[in-house]
Amino acid sequence: MRSVREILESRSVAVIGASRDPLKPGAQLLNVLKKVGFGGQVAGVNPQGGEVFEMPLYRSLEEVPFPVDLAVLHIPPAVVPAALKECARKGVKGVVISAEGFAETGAQGAQYQEEVRAILRSTGMRGFGPNTLGLVNTATGLTTSYYSSSRMLQPGSIGFVAQSGIFVGALLRYLSSLEGLQISKGIGLGNKVDVDECEALAYLMEDEQTRIIGMYLEDVRDGRRFLEVAKKATAQKPVLLMKGGRTKEGARASASHTASLAVEDSVFEGAVRQAGVVRLLAIDEFIRTLKGFLYMPLPRGGRIALVTYSGAQAIMSIDAAVEEGLQVARFTELTREKISRVISTPSKGQNPVDLFPDMLAHGFEKTAMEILGALLEDDGVDGIIFIAFAIFGAEPYRPIIDFLRGRCHKPVFFSLLGTQKDMELASAFLEENRVPCYEFPEMAVRVLARMRKYAQMEGEWKRQG
Amino acid sequence: MRSVREILESRSVAVIGASRDPLKPGAQLLNVLKKVGFGGQVAGVNPQGGEVFEMPLYRSLEEVPFPVDLAVLHIPPAVVPAALKECARKGVKGVVISAEGFAETGAQGAQYQEEVRAILRSTGMRGFGPNTLGLVNTATGLTTSYYSSSRMLQPGSIGFVAQSGIFVGALLRYLSSLEGLQISKGIGLGNKVDVDECEALAYLMEDEQTRIIGMYLEDVRDGRRFLEVAKKATAQKPVLLMKGGRTKEGARASASHTASLAVEDSVFEGAVRQAGVVRLLAIDEFIRTLKGFLYMPLPRGGRIALVTYSGAQAIMSIDAAVEEGLQVARFTELTREKISRVISTPSKGQNPVDLFPDMLAHGFEKTAMEILGALLEDDGVDGIIFIAFAIFGAEPYRPIIDFLRGRCHKPVFFSLLGTQKDMELASAFLEENRVPCYEFPEMAVRVLARMRKYAQMEGEWKRQG
Repeated sequence: MRSVREILESRSVAVIGASRDPLKPGAQLLNVLKKVGFGGQVAGVNPQGGEVFEMPLYRSLEEVPFPVDLAVLHIPPAVVPAALKECARKGVKGVVISAEGFAETGAQGAQYQEEVRAILRSTGMRGFGPNTLGLVNTATGLTTSYYSSSRMLQPGSIGFVAQSGIFVGALLRYLSSLEGLQISKGIGLGNKVDVDECEALAYLMEDEQTRIIGMYLEDVRDGRRFLEVAKKATAQKPVLLMKGGRTKEGARASASHTASLAVEDSVFEGAVRQAGVVRLLAIDEFIRTLKGFLYMPLPRGGRIALVTYSGAQAIMSIDAAVEEGLQVARFTELTREKISRVISTPSKGQNPVDLFPDMLAHGFEKTAMEILGALLEDDGVDGIIFIAFAIFGAEPYRPIIDFLRGRCHKPVFFSLLGTQKDMELASAFLEENRVPCYEFPEMAVRVLARMRKYAQMEGEWKRQG
Repeated sequence: MRSVREILESRSVAVIGASRDPLKPGAQLLNVLKKVGFGGQVAGVNPQGGEVFEMPLYRSLEEVPFPVDLAVLHIPPAVVPAALKECARKGVKGVVISAEGFAETGAQGAQYQEEVRAILRSTGMRGFGPNTLGLVNTATGLTTSYYSSSRMLQPGSIGFVAQSGIFVGALLRYLSSLEGLQISKGIGLGNKVDVDECEALAYLMEDEQTRIIGMYLEDVRDGRRFLEVAKKATAQKPVLLMKGGRTKEGARASASHTASLAVEDSVFEGAVRQAGVVRLLAIDEFIRTLKGFLYMPLPRGGRIALVTYSGAQAIMSIDAAVEEGLQVARFTELTREKISRVISTPSKGQNPVDLFPDMLAHGFEKTAMEILGALLEDDGVDGIIFIAFAIFGAEPYRPIIDFLRGRCHKPVFFSLLGTQKDMELASAFLEENRVPCYEFPEMAVRVLARMRKYAQMEGEWKRQG
């Protein structure tokens, strides 16, 4: 049986059901593969021949004049089994079945899906889907998603697996459009007729390009096996997971989405926690958490320092921190003394450090660097959240970023409030320099809390050997 | 005793402690008042005289050649009492005390604050602060915050009260920089030596320019009175509230921020719920909720319809909706029939409505409008969440916005996923047209759930007369 890795490293792709209509997905995919610079060979197959995007369409897979590693099927369910047999004859190693209309739609579809499963088993070909946009490998420029762009194929270090149809394409497109969040591999599982979440996770765990793994699942077919693989994976790199179908109503909808089986959410929650998986309820938290893990080292403890222009924002952050199981750090005498060089008001050597009004005397940049320097050197501080007022765009952050370079041996997060424009300029600059910057400090608190939990678990496992 | 309204409608302002150094807050404020086009008279007072920003500085308040309604004090705590007495002699109606160093810093500061209180009581002048940037009235162009811009003074309909120093300035600046979120009045309470949350709330409740009230509080001095005022206020317009100091640690920090007294959070939570106040834990949720209330009508029930390009996102939204107490609507036969004109797959007349793959046949715009039309006319649907794939920027939404105009008698929310750029273009266009658009549909779900709760409460009170 072929490995998932072999399929992701395919050097040639055939699109079966390539349309002559340039707006159809099968045609779009051919165009995309040409534009994103996939290094391997590409062929379109259409029984009526013709051409699209200046590429000839072959009347059958057999006619394709080179060996085909991977076939992408944009054809209706009823004709998929015959096409798979043709793939096997051609020596195809793996297939992505993009069409909907299988087990998620009822009995007839389920029967097609069983036929697909039987053919894959008997031929040793590996199958992704049905009902998925399929695969992306930025190391080779391979994509089977017609929603890909060159930007999406820029190599990064986030591996993402989704039990979904189109979502995997949309989310990868979004991620890769964000500064610093480029992907390594993308895997759409769809209805999981063959390759499932366990195999995909095991592959990403071994993949050297992947530094962090993201998952969207709707069910887990074999809980014990998932727990086993997930434990191994989280010991090597962080695994962030979203699950659809937490509620009965959500699970019902997921049955008609990817033919998922309901899993009692508390059981699932217990399993992922035991495995050290970081669970997230929504995509915005997923993305913020990705940035934390990718840009910053893990914290050694849960004691945070807050630096703030605004007491109100610091207080809301402390509330969030305590609710998330973090602690407000107590500074050493030395730290207080260092801080008092720029913050003269007697109470201001305390945590949170209040920048106002003393900041006006020394200027924002100098004040910020003195305080950050003191906090980075205080062993009683495990993470720093800097709440600033956004004004003058990115400018005030240039010396601060220079100062932080090489010094962030503990996580440092920024949060900025000001006009939308100032916030965007400053935040883009900080994130280009791999310092996470969120709109509001509570977001940083939650990310830090997740990194802390992961670090504790990882440390525990390392001690256990 | 003067009313809060009288002070907000001040026609002349004196800045006491106006510096000749143009970078100091007292000087900045004079410049700001000039730039934002405040219609009234403005004077700076500095014992050494001189000038700043081409404005003469008077050596005393007495020398100011016109009556002064409002004085802003940028002077140290020790000299505030004497300045207040001078204000009273001049016939000043209200004062904003911007300086820090009062009850939030300890015994000496608390004593100054008590002196301030006594002088205000005996003279009938009204006081805001100490420790606050103070007041904004966009109807007259008045501001006492040196962090104001012309944009911030553009008249809007959000009234905001904050028990804070600088936060009120930063948040108002942020809000007013966002499309459609201009403010009516801003009130910083600081340490609340005189005007408190109840009086500010009562004022905004009566203020005709204000359609929705936002609050940030750290304590409530008289719970019963607050409950009474809040009940009256929520019967007239929505009140959204954030509170700092939910946890013991947060409350401790708020004591040294605005000298707040700890309130057991469960007691507070019960009171605000009873009063129909919408409580929010963080600023991002506050802003999203503002948009929902401002742009859309209240829902008549909790049954939502989802339209989606992605099963995964719809499922996560259903999970969030059920957790928030909403229901998944059941469509009428007629609605299903209408939807089936554009969505032919048999299962697709169901909720959530899955746009793929049928959308490709009719085009996104036509498909979207047909479905939206059907759902707007279905009395079993109380709110609509449309989850779209962002591509081609704002273009696809032009006909949809035209179609929705005059038809949104129930709330409609969009959520878009795609490249960051496409999301920003489409989202800006939708929000310019007062259709809330969030990055992720769970955000819309939570806003809709809050609007639903508010509508239930409001309906209940209307029935009670």
